[in-house]
Amino acid sequence: MIEDKNQQRTPLSKLGEFALIDHLTKNFKLKHKSTIKGIGDDAAVLEHKTKQIVVTTDLLIEGVHFDLSYMPLKHLGYKAVIVNLSDVYAMNAEATQITVSIAVSNRFSLEALEELYAGIETAANVYNIDVIGGDTTSSTSGLLISVTAIGKANKEDVVYRNAAKPSDLLVVTGDLGAAYLGLQVLEREKEVFKVNPNNQPDLDQYSYIIERQLKPEARKDIIKLLKDLEVKPTAMIDISDGLSSEIMHLCKQSKVGCDLYENKIPLDPQVISTCEEFKMDSTTIALNGGEDYELLMTISQEDYPKIKANPNLTVIGYMTDESSGMHLITRADTKIPITAQGWNSLED
Amino acid sequence: MIEDKNQQRTPLSKLGEFALIDHLTKNFKLKHKSTIKGIGDDAAVLEHKTKQIVVTTDLLIEGVHFDLSYMPLKHLGYKAVIVNLSDVYAMNAEATQITVSIAVSNRFSLEALEELYAGIETAANVYNIDVIGGDTTSSTSGLLISVTAIGKANKEDVVYRNAAKPSDLLVVTGDLGAAYLGLQVLEREKEVFKVNPNNQPDLDQYSYIIERQLKPEARKDIIKLLKDLEVKPTAMIDISDGLSSEIMHLCKQSKVGCDLYENKIPLDPQVISTCEEFKMDSTTIALNGGEDYELLMTISQEDYPKIKANPNLTVIGYMTDESSGMHLITRADTKIPITAQGWNSLED
Repeated sequence: MIEDKNQQRTPLSKLGEFALIDHLTKNFKLKHKSTIKGIGDDAAVLEHKTKQIVVTTDLLIEGVHFDLSYMPLKHLGYKAVIVNLSDVYAMNAEATQITVSIAVSNRFSLEALEELYAGIETAANVYNIDVIGGDTTSSTSGLLISVTAIGKANKEDVVYRNAAKPSDLLVVTGDLGAAYLGLQVLEREKEVFKVNPNNQPDLDQYSYIIERQLKPEARKDIIKLLKDLEVKPTAMIDISDGLSSEIMHLCKQSKVGCDLYENKIPLDPQVISTCEEFKMDSTTIALNGGEDYELLMTISQEDYPKIKANPNLTVIGYMTDESSGMHLITRADTKIPITAQGWNSLED
Repeated sequence: MIEDKNQQRTPLSKLGEFALIDHLTKNFKLKHKSTIKGIGDDAAVLEHKTKQIVVTTDLLIEGVHFDLSYMPLKHLGYKAVIVNLSDVYAMNAEATQITVSIAVSNRFSLEALEELYAGIETAANVYNIDVIGGDTTSSTSGLLISVTAIGKANKEDVVYRNAAKPSDLLVVTGDLGAAYLGLQVLEREKEVFKVNPNNQPDLDQYSYIIERQLKPEARKDIIKLLKDLEVKPTAMIDISDGLSSEIMHLCKQSKVGCDLYENKIPLDPQVISTCEEFKMDSTTIALNGGEDYELLMTISQEDYPKIKANPNLTVIGYMTDESSGMHLITRADTKIPITAQGWNSLED
């Protein structure tokens, strides 16, 4: 939150659009045989002979999805890639290419965009992705990033949202609620900083939840793990809007119901302690927080022996008949309907 | 420019993101065998067995790329698709799928977005495109549209920007400069309207140039024509930023020079008459206007007999050695260097 007033600042208008794209993308190396042509023509060219191709896209908008007063641009670039890769992995596919388009107002300098692209490049390297194109333009206000991610999978490996069956196990990766709580801590520190700019916050006790907000990862490792375990989920979705919202998507599209067990929802100790501090209910946060980028899947009962010992996978419930509805079984053993209070970006 | 004050207005917050996507996309029918899964999962799934796949993306931003005071939303939706398809055709490929992401501020109603999507749907039908996904979110100011287009081609048919050869003919489709002039007329009428809202403009004499601005088409027909003529261009690019800018891209990437003949540049009679009225030089407009969405290609001399009788294709010059540079040969037979004054969206 402390700005270096002496940093270099090159106005974007000095370069123009084409020189800017060249400058920002010159370090991007192509990594995939399937990338025939990347940046530099009217379109990129890909070749996938015997694979199916998955395509997904997400917009990130300043003031809606991120706040640059506590989100460093490098982290933002990284996160913009991650949220798209997460959707590819949720198809049980391998992510291979992305396009990145940005719109910037003239308050951004070349050095600021270099930071953003450094984050994009880091994510592309960590996740073995080719950056193959994009568009760069001005905006009348703020920063906007639009990423489209492309992946591939064998036809028989692709997992959709609509094939969960009654009695399938409901399984989640990692833990939930941390990214939302990290955001609450950052928002609070921003308010403190406004009142007293000399206050240096000690955020050590929030390190995990802040990292989950500022530098989320996508679960590429889970796609490999599932292959190694020889488990193909019956349905899968990534958790971007909150567990309850994603469960409702799976149930609605698969025409099934669900019993979710409150005491099975995986929570990090920092989530529990921070919820106590903020006087928030940790189950509510896990159900509705969002931005976890974990994977939620349904698995056939017969695959249970293959996953039960794995620390990455937690069984949190099971699917039921559609007519049974969607329920949370609380710690007190009462059964309450699941409703989506997930993040709604279109509220006034 | 005349608003109906009684039109229905449903706030977007009444629906929420998922219901909004369902509502806006429910009429989209899938047309391509290669579209395995469209909207409704984490990602779309495509399958192209023996083809190469081309991918391109463009951002359109209110206040930068369009002005809603004279651009009807339906036309805007249509144009947002067209500008992306044009890039696919510029690869000599068949456009097959698009994703459409939008960000809207709360000044837009459901009915406004329905208009926008009606334009998107019309373009998808006219050009035989599947709409396979997207993202819908709020913005802090104005409307933003991000489209990614996907196409396919046989490997041997793809045409890049970097393979023009000295002595190749420089060929352009259609005519140039009309879209930019149409914008000038619309901007002028907007100013007139501000002064006198009761003035009903007579725009008949500008019908062609205004249509080129508000409802451009992409040259899908040229891709078919080239196949029928058995001509494969050596290089190709679409004209979005202006002829001079696109010529410079072709020359730079192909490492060649170019002689462009002023008297060969195709102009519509309305462009000539409107340039006279506005006291503008029609060559300057054709070179720098932009938004024509015509195709600029280089063709081997031996293919000249196949194209010379075709009214869609105009030879406007030929390529030279790189050391000869890029020149315009004027009507007065003087040779002046081509410089790009094309549209630069990043200027202050």
